Parts: sequence; C-alpha cells; structure tokens
Amino acid sequence: MSALNLIFLGTAGCGKSTMTSSFGKWLEKELGMKTLYVNLDPGCEQLPYQPDFDVRNYFTITELMRREGLGPNGAMIRACELMESKIPEFALEINRLGGEVRLLDTPGQMEVFLFHGGPEMAKLVEGFTVCLFLMDAKLVLQSFGSTLVRLLGLSVGLRMGIPTVSILNKIDLIERREELERLLAVPAFGTGVLSDLTGSLSQLLLQFLPPARILKTSAISGEGFKEMYDLIHETRCACGDLT
Amino acid sequence: MSALNLIFLGTAGCGKSTMTSSFGKWLEKELGMKTLYVNLDPGCEQLPYQPDFDVRNYFTITELMRREGLGPNGAMIRACELMESKIPEFALEINRLGGEVRLLDTPGQMEVFLFHGGPEMAKLVEGFTVCLFLMDAKLVLQSFGSTLVRLLGLSVGLRMGIPTVSILNKIDLIERREELERLLAVPAFGTGVLSDLTGSLSQLLLQFLPPARILKTSAISGEGFKEMYDLIHETRCACGDLT
Repeated sequence: MSALNLIFLGTAGCGKSTMTSSFGKWLEKELGMKTLYVNLDPGCEQLPYQPDFDVRNYFTITELMRREGLGPNGAMIRACELMESKIPEFALEINRLGGEVRLLDTPGQMEVFLFHGGPEMAKLVEGFTVCLFLMDAKLVLQSFGSTLVRLLGLSVGLRMGIPTVSILNKIDLIERREELERLLAVPAFGTGVLSDLTGSLSQLLLQFLPPARILKTSAISGEGFKEMYDLIHETRCACGDLT
Repeated sequence: MSALNLIFLGTAGCGKSTMTSSFGKWLEKELGMKTLYVNLDPGCEQLPYQPDFDVRNYFTITELMRREGLGPNGAMIRACELMESKIPEFALEINRLGGEVRLLDTPGQMEVFLFHGGPEMAKLVEGFTVCLFLMDAKLVLQSFGSTLVRLLGLSVGLRMGIPTVSILNKIDLIERREELERLLAVPAFGTGVLSDLTGSLSQLLLQFLPPARILKTSAISGEGFKEMYDLIHETRCACGDLT
C-alpha cells in the first residue's frame, strides 16, 4: 500500500509539533506502524521528535536574519520564497525516505505554508495525503467561534486541495466542555452588522462540516487519537485508496 | 464627528504598510483629512510612514529574541501574549492621540493580530472602526481562489467583529485582468473530493460577498482608492454613524 502522509497545519501555538510527535508515537505503539517525521518549520528551535527530514538543514529564520541582515518580517518573507522554490526538491527527498506513515510538521505561522508551497507539497509528496487542521479549542468559546471554526476549516481544505480534517486541539484545557459541544452543534446567531450573516451561513456550513466531523483532541492525554485515525482511514477509503 | 479608524489586515507581503501609507496620504491630499498613523507590527524594520503610535516603543521581535533568548517562533508567540495583554493600554494611548482618521497597520503575520488582541483593539479604539482585509490579487487566479477570497473575507469579518471590506491588492501586478473578473463573478466549480463543496457554497457566498463588494486596489498607482473611501463611507452611513 502507498504511504500515508499527514500534514499538520494550524496557527501559532495550536500544538502542531506536540501533536506530530504524540500522534506519531501513538501510531507506532498502538498500530505498530512505521513512522517518519518531517519538519518543515524553519523557525523552530527545539522539536519533541527526531526529524527524518529537516528544513533547517537548508535554512532557518535566525540564519536568514543574521546572514542576510533581515528583520523578523523580512526573514519570514524570504523563508516563504525559499520554501516555495524548494518544495519540489524537498518533496523528492521526502519521497525517497519511504516509510509507512509520514508526519509533516509545518511552519509555526500557518500563513507561511498555506500561501507559500503548502498546496504544492500536498501535490508532490507521493502516497495518500491528508491535511489535519489544528485549531485551539478555546476558539469555539469566543465570539462567532463555531462558525469561524467551520469557515477556517473549509478555507484550509480548499487551499490545500486535499481532504482536510478539522481538529479542535488542546481540548484538555477546556473546562466548559458542554458549552463547547452546544456551541458546535447549533449555528451561532449574532447581533448587529453581522446578524444577517450568521443565520443562513451557519446552517449551510453545518452541511459541509457537521459537528461530528470536527474532532476534539489532546496531544497531551491522547484524547481523540483513535477517532482521528479512524477518520483518516475512512477518508482514505472514501477516496478509493484502499480498495 | 467621531474618529474613523481603519485597520489594515492581511497576510505577510500583501502590502499592508504600503497601503497604510499611500491611502493615508491620499486622504490627506484628496480630502484634506487629518490622519494619524499607528504601527502595531513589532516585527517590521522600516516603515513607509512616520508612526504617531508605534508598538516598537514597547517591544520588538528582534529584542524579544535577544533579551529572552528566544527563537523566531518563540519570540512570535511571546509577542502575541504581549500584544494581547497590552491592547487596552495601546487603545487608551491611541484614543488620546485624537485625529480625524487613524490608520492602523498590523503585524506582518496576520495570525498574530487576528487571534491575539485584534478583536479587542477593534472594540476599544474609539470612533467608527472598519477592517480593510487585504489579499494578494493573484490568489483569485489560483485553485478555488474566488471561493477562498470570500471565505477568508467572511472569516476575518466574523473574527474582528466589525464591518470588514475585502480588498484584492497589488492589482497592478495582474496581467490577466479579465480572467480575474470572470473568476470573481462566477462560482468556482471544482473536481474530485472538493466538487460537492464549491457549487452551492460559492453560490451562497456570492450572496454575502458579491463581486461588486470586493475591491481591487493598488497601493502603488492609487487605483481603487476612491472606491475604497466610498465603501468605507457607505458602511459608516449604513451603521448609522453619520446620521
């Protein structure tokens, strides 16, 4: 069977690297799978896993700042350009690694990957590829959160061009768990200038991303890992990759 | 009349700072308005305008890296925390500045502001506040671009909680202008796993953000500035701020 590629994507601080590491270890331990770790984040200092491919062997943000005399923003934009131009080379090398499951950890700032090279990497890496879009679960508790979670999930899926699973991570930190479930299940109704939006839009979004398809995970406790694997597997079957 | 606050938001490299500067100068020159410039980006090195308020007087990414021994990602996350905690203080100081129009330039990486402090700043700054969400116009020409532009515009508007104008910037760099207009006007139809999405979703999104409401601008040539001002003014009237 062809390799399974899992691309972990999400905003800064949503727990991508921790998830990459914990879920990889879970796949090894629970399912005896052969995993490979890919780090595509040129801005990280430490990683909770030992990468089999590491973008930092090519360039790092700190190095770009030092060597090219750039500020943090300049270095980040330069990293985007480098990322974009080097994706074919990276994909080739990742493909050479083999492995049963490859876990791809992406840049701390989601924009870097989503708008520069991410969709191309998804296309070029061989095997069946799923995007796991991590959001901080507390986002749901904030204003228009449940609508936003769906809009962002759809946006990322469309942009990446591959099956995308929306994941509310750091669920272990949520105390108001029932409130989160309630907010996810019903469309958010707003007031003021946004009220016309939230009614029918949320209703429609529920058709595309029903609450049951939004996973809740904790990279710390391992909550939701079994469901995450099942959903990945189910997606793969639905796409005909396992027939 | 109360102050008008314009918050310029967008992904790295979409032209926020240049737009802040050019549109501010246009408002001064064409409409004789009194403008104030607010820089909320702790990661920039140079600015094309002279800021009246500058977050870099409080902290910068480079300084956080040096002083706290952080890597680029760590410094960015620390900046998010600082931003979030200091927004009330910043808003107070910005309110004290007065001014007829205040142009607020935001962090290079959109996520920093959108998920950390942005919505609170929109609430705390006094006067009528509009978010101008800049995207690189070439996004429309890419896969599922026209649907994505609407999804992102809606997401940002919901998150910021204020009227949000979607803007395709750097329109001067687009050669296939007719193609862009055509793609904006009709829903995008995809193939494969995403085909079920794009049909009815795009149709619905057109109701919320019709093509006419998506501005096309160039901060270099000034194209679209008049339309941008008219739309801001119209939004203000619709919200009852000018009655």
